Amino acid sequence: MCRILLFLFVSFSFTLNAQSIERIEPSNWWVNMVNSQLQLMVHGEDISQLTPTIIDPRVQLTEIHRTDNPNYLFIDLTLSPELTAGSIEIAFKRDHKTVLTHQYPILSRQAHSKQRQGFSSKDVIYLITPDRFANGDARNDNVAEMAEGLNRSNKGGRHGGDIQGIIDHLDYIKEMGFTQIWLNPVLENNMTEYSYHGYSTTDYYAVDPRLGSNALYQTLSTKAKSQGLGIIMDVILNHIGSEHWWMTDMPSKDWLNQHPQYTGTNHFRESLHDPYAAKADKDLFHKGWFVTTMPDLNQQNPLVTQYLIQNVIWWIETADLSGVRVDTYSYSDKAFLAAWTAAIMQEYPNFNIVGEEWSINPAIVAYWQKDSPRHDNYPTQLPSLMDFPLQEALIHGLKEKESWSSGLIRINQTLANDFLYGDPYNLVTFPDNHDMSRIYTRLDQDVDLVKMALAFFATTRGIPQIFYGTEILMPGSDDHGELRADFPGGWSGDKTNALTGKGLTDKQIEVQQYTKTLLNWRKQSDIVQQGKLTHYNRDDGMYVYFRHLPNTAKKVMVVMNKNAEVKSLNMARFSEVLGNAQRFNARNVMTDESIVINGELTVPKKQTLILEIE
Amino acid sequence: MCRILLFLFVSFSFTLNAQSIERIEPSNWWVNMVNSQLQLMVHGEDISQLTPTIIDPRVQLTEIHRTDNPNYLFIDLTLSPELTAGSIEIAFKRDHKTVLTHQYPILSRQAHSKQRQGFSSKDVIYLITPDRFANGDARNDNVAEMAEGLNRSNKGGRHGGDIQGIIDHLDYIKEMGFTQIWLNPVLENNMTEYSYHGYSTTDYYAVDPRLGSNALYQTLSTKAKSQGLGIIMDVILNHIGSEHWWMTDMPSKDWLNQHPQYTGTNHFRESLHDPYAAKADKDLFHKGWFVTTMPDLNQQNPLVTQYLIQNVIWWIETADLSGVRVDTYSYSDKAFLAAWTAAIMQEYPNFNIVGEEWSINPAIVAYWQKDSPRHDNYPTQLPSLMDFPLQEALIHGLKEKESWSSGLIRINQTLANDFLYGDPYNLVTFPDNHDMSRIYTRLDQDVDLVKMALAFFATTRGIPQIFYGTEILMPGSDDHGELRADFPGGWSGDKTNALTGKGLTDKQIEVQQYTKTLLNWRKQSDIVQQGKLTHYNRDDGMYVYFRHLPNTAKKVMVVMNKNAEVKSLNMARFSEVLGNAQRFNARNVMTDESIVINGELTVPKKQTLILEIE
Repeated sequence: MCRILLFLFVSFSFTLNAQSIERIEPSNWWVNMVNSQLQLMVHGEDISQLTPTIIDPRVQLTEIHRTDNPNYLFIDLTLSPELTAGSIEIAFKRDHKTVLTHQYPILSRQAHSKQRQGFSSKDVIYLITPDRFANGDARNDNVAEMAEGLNRSNKGGRHGGDIQGIIDHLDYIKEMGFTQIWLNPVLENNMTEYSYHGYSTTDYYAVDPRLGSNALYQTLSTKAKSQGLGIIMDVILNHIGSEHWWMTDMPSKDWLNQHPQYTGTNHFRESLHDPYAAKADKDLFHKGWFVTTMPDLNQQNPLVTQYLIQNVIWWIETADLSGVRVDTYSYSDKAFLAAWTAAIMQEYPNFNIVGEEWSINPAIVAYWQKDSPRHDNYPTQLPSLMDFPLQEALIHGLKEKESWSSGLIRINQTLANDFLYGDPYNLVTFPDNHDMSRIYTRLDQDVDLVKMALAFFATTRGIPQIFYGTEILMPGSDDHGELRADFPGGWSGDKTNALTGKGLTDKQIEVQQYTKTLLNWRKQSDIVQQGKLTHYNRDDGMYVYFRHLPNTAKKVMVVMNKNAEVKSLNMARFSEVLGNAQRFNARNVMTDESIVINGELTVPKKQTLILEIE
Repeated sequence: MCRILLFLFVSFSFTLNAQSIERIEPSNWWVNMVNSQLQLMVHGEDISQLTPTIIDPRVQLTEIHRTDNPNYLFIDLTLSPELTAGSIEIAFKRDHKTVLTHQYPILSRQAHSKQRQGFSSKDVIYLITPDRFANGDARNDNVAEMAEGLNRSNKGGRHGGDIQGIIDHLDYIKEMGFTQIWLNPVLENNMTEYSYHGYSTTDYYAVDPRLGSNALYQTLSTKAKSQGLGIIMDVILNHIGSEHWWMTDMPSKDWLNQHPQYTGTNHFRESLHDPYAAKADKDLFHKGWFVTTMPDLNQQNPLVTQYLIQNVIWWIETADLSGVRVDTYSYSDKAFLAAWTAAIMQEYPNFNIVGEEWSINPAIVAYWQKDSPRHDNYPTQLPSLMDFPLQEALIHGLKEKESWSSGLIRINQTLANDFLYGDPYNLVTFPDNHDMSRIYTRLDQDVDLVKMALAFFATTRGIPQIFYGTEILMPGSDDHGELRADFPGGWSGDKTNALTGKGLTDKQIEVQQYTKTLLNWRKQSDIVQQGKLTHYNRDDGMYVYFRHLPNTAKKVMVVMNKNAEVKSLNMARFSEVLGNAQRFNARNVMTDESIVINGELTVPKKQTLILEIE
């Protein structure tokens, strides 16, 4: 009888208050995480009227947070080490009576998940804009629930590329010599227009259905791993898309940085470090919105902080990631960034995270990196940053006429600044990316210079990243839609096919082959991957450097010769690295020719000579 | 009989070895120095055959150094606190018999010598090229012992300016509002040509007779001090002139950095900090010669180190200096520089030394400053550096069209880098100096912009330095002799006279008067001298900043308006500094007008508005 009464009562309660849980995020968690704390965001109409309880002795419900919006509850749990895979029953009660129950899934972790190795200087990263690489599944070109459909004639529209397209061409990526894939964001961007780039997240826990699904993203990761390719996720902490589901039912009034009227960021990243900057300017930098369609998250709200920390950990576990790239890094709250990086690195001590701090001032970039010498005690754990200063230096170095203050000296001067970094060898280097003129355009469509740029990034310190299409001289300058053009061969019916070589020009094939040879050599050279860099002050239009490992006789020697004529190089200058011998046996790694150097090295005109010297 | 025999023996000895001391440097020392050690360089033919001895119980002869040149002896003394002014008798003996004696003078120190206050942010420095400011004594235009004589028709020749000329016009310098005078080097430069600039020292202990004498330099200092003007000496540690007296009788083979053939420095200052630079490139930077006529001192030789330390201390005591400017700072040996700065700052804890590190990279400049955050433990005690980065930023800031990345934002961005410095308020700032295009030329002879540059340096953080003639719009670009032109009025018969105003154009008078008003206001404003700087991100072609002291209601507000039109500025933006009042009483410090600001401030076109706001 007692049971029946209870049943009737519950039914009665439901009838009066037809409550349900619309979302619990994260939707699951794992056993044996380093951090035993977990915070669930529960969304449902008037859910805050209920009180969650857990009887499971392996789980302690430590705190319940309610906000100014009754449709949210935040539940803090402490998971004991005894917890095993299965589920945790959460009972939501009113007046001590259970109104709703939820079986919260707890999964077991993959072996070595904690010790996963992040991308490193052993790797070369291929950056892909998923909408623009290959359309592997035409069925998802238009998805009913998504506002924007296919329109290839619109440079800023969706072109149909997807995760299946990337899966289909993993062999190409592998054979080119890449070992990591960074995709521009794959999460749902249900915006009315300009959604293809992926930087306007509308759901932090769902892959955009026009790109695939969470399951397909997992498949990509599994298949990539089987080809020796890691997956790096592009994460946006600073802002969401204006069509994010939160926007119609904000978790709290302080979930976003709100302003009386639309207020954009001043983009003045230096203000964060500026001893003289007015607080108003500092605040405007990180609290102003990136653009009108990108509402700015208030990471000073600890619930937002926790949400963003758990979200990325959820994706690392779910999609077995080997790294994370963080968009508009410094635009987020500074204290939050320290907490966020620390939480991730605590879970995955060998992981890698690369922040985008788009400044050509190394002092500004270096500030964010772990172990950089600094003027304050900012506790950053960020392992890597995008090396914008070196990209700028390389381009000026190649394009400028040589003088005492211009040309290749830019590279010497910029690398000299590496004393500012905690670990310059862990910076991500690149000739271009999805936000700037493509290198072929930037170098005035000079194929020789493009090859020199590729050789430089493949052999200097750092982790090279190459934007899809750079290997086939794709052009593009200011227009984002244009510089993120469709990769030829990725769409059925393409007349040109970079994947097979069909229809490519001789120059395109030359650079594609050059890239392939370069990266496949790099893939097996521990010297260039991990060797110490020693470089020489540029001289006579040539820049010479070495990579070398202790106790390894073989060295990698790189000579950039910008001159339009063949040059002779006296090897005696390099005795510090090579010893006092005058005669060396060497192998040209790009041509596989063996050469004997006798005092003088002949350097071909306008190219980079890469030698392995015994 | 015994005495007679001894006398005969000594006479006999003299006859066989007619030895004498040509120089002892330093020629005197002082009682009660912090450092009780003193090293004398004794020069004389075969002097090393003799053994110096001292009987005076207040002086301990601790070590005698002989080099590969028998004509030198270096004698280490420890002076006890009991030593009083007078002299120390040094007996030079052979076979225990005195061959020579020398009475070495010990002077008493001026009161408060140790505690002398170096130049500081309270000061404005007037930089003078002594050969080019005023010819106060035509009798020294040609000096028999000096190779180069007067030739005013040669831009790179000697023009006859001298110390007497500066003494004669101290009233002008004072009335203009300057409080410190930095003279380009005054020491003997007995070179065959191009000697006027003073950077080829031929005697470290003698003022060039064409400029005056040691005594006249002391007179300058005394008279300047009586007018409230300090004297800053320009010191060259890196090199000497090729006609230095050492060159015909080197103190040792390793006194200079010698090379098998002439080897110039690579000027690659970054190599010192570069984690990857080859040692050969680092060595070439500091061991290569500046130019063929400037032999490079080997400061790794401890005798050279000690010589250079004592020389500057000698001049500080002798000429009662308030500061030192160090030429080509980083070109000297790095460990030596640390020892040199430490030794001086130990003697004079409140002194100031400004190093010239000509780089526009703040990370490179900041490295040398005391207390800068750094990646290594380099123990520099250098208090100040020349702020080349800010000079470059100001010029671009004024000249460039405003855009998101150009124009006045350069000033914000550059000052933001001040987190790299141990003490940015102690940097020396300047619109130009003796080595670069004059500001009037650099700013395309735009008088409004020159006034804005002057107002900026007079009011932002740092210690402003102004090159003689800038106040009367002297032009000049690449040619050194030209940009160091003669100051009009400094030579009898000059048709134009900047000292009286005779013959100046209206524009010249306008800028001279502007400078005078500006600096005389600065001279009495503790807020602008010592106040904290708070600045705002440039907006709408205007750059706004404040100087303010804790517990002082009055603030200095500076508004640079680059626009060709009058602008209105909403004061609400500045509430962080000014509080929430809407109405302010202010005084325009340049016009002495009182104004009332009510919410909006009207800013005149293309000028800098400097207000004292209550």
